[in-house]
Amino acid sequence: MTLFDLSHPIRSSMPVYPGDPAVAIESALSITTDGVNVAQLHLGSHTGTHLDAPAHVFANGRTVDQLDLALLDGAAYVVQTTVTDPTTLTGRAVQLDNVDPLPKWLPNIVCVATGWDRYFYHPLREDHPFIDIELARTLWDRGARVLGVDTLSPDPTSEHCQNWPVHDFWLGNDGVVVENLRGLTRLADYVNMSILPLSLQGGDGSPVRAVARQT
Amino acid sequence: MTLFDLSHPIRSSMPVYPGDPAVAIESALSITTDGVNVAQLHLGSHTGTHLDAPAHVFANGRTVDQLDLALLDGAAYVVQTTVTDPTTLTGRAVQLDNVDPLPKWLPNIVCVATGWDRYFYHPLREDHPFIDIELARTLWDRGARVLGVDTLSPDPTSEHCQNWPVHDFWLGNDGVVVENLRGLTRLADYVNMSILPLSLQGGDGSPVRAVARQT
Repeated sequence: MTLFDLSHPIRSSMPVYPGDPAVAIESALSITTDGVNVAQLHLGSHTGTHLDAPAHVFANGRTVDQLDLALLDGAAYVVQTTVTDPTTLTGRAVQLDNVDPLPKWLPNIVCVATGWDRYFYHPLREDHPFIDIELARTLWDRGARVLGVDTLSPDPTSEHCQNWPVHDFWLGNDGVVVENLRGLTRLADYVNMSILPLSLQGGDGSPVRAVARQT
Repeated sequence: MTLFDLSHPIRSSMPVYPGDPAVAIESALSITTDGVNVAQLHLGSHTGTHLDAPAHVFANGRTVDQLDLALLDGAAYVVQTTVTDPTTLTGRAVQLDNVDPLPKWLPNIVCVATGWDRYFYHPLREDHPFIDIELARTLWDRGARVLGVDTLSPDPTSEHCQNWPVHDFWLGNDGVVVENLRGLTRLADYVNMSILPLSLQGGDGSPVRAVARQT
């Protein structure tokens, strides 16, 4: 069995979603003066590879500590696009006819692989492909409850637009969204994943160390 | 298969190791004004249930992002104490003759269950049992590389003492220490665990959402 790390490293001043808090990691204790190194972390709840709980968008939505961990640990299906050149997806919707044929029944976790994680440190990261609402509905109808993407968001990213149809649909149905996954395109279609959030009480989201296990 | 959450919740002003940074979680964006809830997290790298990388104690030690995830994901053995009343362990070493007989060969991950996690919110948390260095050496010699405890530390906790023999031995041998695990006493001896840190670049430690899987 091979373990794949699906998370971007977390570091000071790393890219964040427009308007989100900046990431700063500083020394709190040091071996020289205190005998140990301890860092102080300042970061937003949606830093790097992370998940959105329903409370991200809905005031009465489920919070991170209320998520069912069993939903976030187990069988996963990875949807690969049929696009030869991913740049043709720049700023465009990934539709049903842009992906390999879907199985009739899907496991809890479904990730859509576009390869856009390669632009995480490039301005193109905000012109990412997004998930067509009809594709999202189809994934949900076939059993998916955790929707993972390798982009900043399953909806278009724009600082001045507050229209998030996939978030509204998915989180409104008490599902979970996972953003900024890394390395999805090299995975098989059926794998095992863990996407476990920190137990942030009342939290709207959490960074995760997502992994895939593949035989 | 049943999934057990082995992590304490993370919240503002939660207990921390003496001298470590305080935890504060505050709102950065809100649904009312921004359309979404996003929190800003301020916390130490050794908050709540967390792991220590060798860089916690050794300047040239391996950092969190350099840990082999395969070591932190898989078979685990849980050592239960033979003590009927755990309070008899207050501030004392857990020795080889305080635990059930150990198998000759141990998996990567070994956790010592004392039940002390019940005192995480009580002043007694700092008078926790610790791991006798001979017990630690025995666990290492039989194959353990990740040592988990349900206390603040496998060494005695004292603000004025910088003598950490188990940390020095375990991290000095490039192992990993996991602290503040929760609910170990209810687990079977052989389980499957994931103890995955955030990918903190250059990090000395990281909070984790540790889980056990038991059939």
